[in-house]
Amino acid sequence: EEDKDVAADGVKVPVVRMQVGEVAESSIVAVLPVCRAEEREVEVEEAPWECGGGGDFGIVEAEKGWSRWVVLPGWEPVAGLRRGGVAVAFKNATVLPWRAKKYNRDEHILVVADRGRKEVVADEGFYLVFGGGNGSGQEGLKVERGSGLKEIGVKESLGTVVLVVRPPGEENDTQLIDDDWE
Amino acid sequence: EEDKDVAADGVKVPVVRMQVGEVAESSIVAVLPVCRAEEREVEVEEAPWECGGGGDFGIVEAEKGWSRWVVLPGWEPVAGLRRGGVAVAFKNATVLPWRAKKYNRDEHILVVADRGRKEVVADEGFYLVFGGGNGSGQEGLKVERGSGLKEIGVKESLGTVVLVVRPPGEENDTQLIDDDWE
Repeated sequence: EEDKDVAADGVKVPVVRMQVGEVAESSIVAVLPVCRAEEREVEVEEAPWECGGGGDFGIVEAEKGWSRWVVLPGWEPVAGLRRGGVAVAFKNATVLPWRAKKYNRDEHILVVADRGRKEVVADEGFYLVFGGGNGSGQEGLKVERGSGLKEIGVKESLGTVVLVVRPPGEENDTQLIDDDWE
Repeated sequence: EEDKDVAADGVKVPVVRMQVGEVAESSIVAVLPVCRAEEREVEVEEAPWECGGGGDFGIVEAEKGWSRWVVLPGWEPVAGLRRGGVAVAFKNATVLPWRAKKYNRDEHILVVADRGRKEVVADEGFYLVFGGGNGSGQEGLKVERGSGLKEIGVKESLGTVVLVVRPPGEENDTQLIDDDWE
């Protein structure tokens, strides 16, 4: 599923619900290193940058070893990330800085960020940052709005969020849900 | 593409030609660590064993880092390998111990082996071994027939070959080619 609004300026971020078997529906797949949200920012910085598949079989040759990987359908924002892409696995959607009424609070969320775009440029953009327990009471990786980061003088993030992936829904939930940001 | 003859005793090994976009055609994909054929056997032994995807997003959690990975469609022999599977990338099909007239000699070949089955049991089975330049003049990983290994007293291999993958063909070559072994 492609969202034409994404590429332009990184402001609108598509939220997609993965379908069962959807790794299927594209002729391209993307393979990204995965970081756990509860880890410190160092893990995000250390994850390999070169993750593009090449050759006849699309073999991924990262510049270093990594133990956690995820295969995603070739959604446009992800397929374009041949360098610097990283996926962060969050235990639930409360980490997202917008009301997500429709979300099951317990559903896992995968946030894909582009580490090649660390600068906090767009007020309406979303950025992956390491938060030291502000309000949430929990240390760890977070997604924050550009405007919020600018207010507290943060100019650099760990990366610009390019995609949020929700898990496959139950049974015949074949509708792709694009949630607006608020 | 599933080959019913495979699972039984490891003797018949399916050879499949990957289609462009085929990582697509199954609801399951398999992610395997890749070794290069020119490396010594130690690389095959060191590649991570735990490669099963889990959770909502099928995140692979290997027990150690690894830099080369391949995503394959969930072909039956591969999908069953949650532990011990490894893919070896060969530069051409001459490494295979059977006449492959139909193959382009320059086409790359991916051999998937199960490291959980090292013992050379079946005469007609195929095994991944490290060859020290016998005849071929080249050191490196090879695929050998069980009978041939038994003749020279080799009882243990690096793993039983479960699948040989040929690269996608040109354009509209949509026919799946199952080559017989000789």
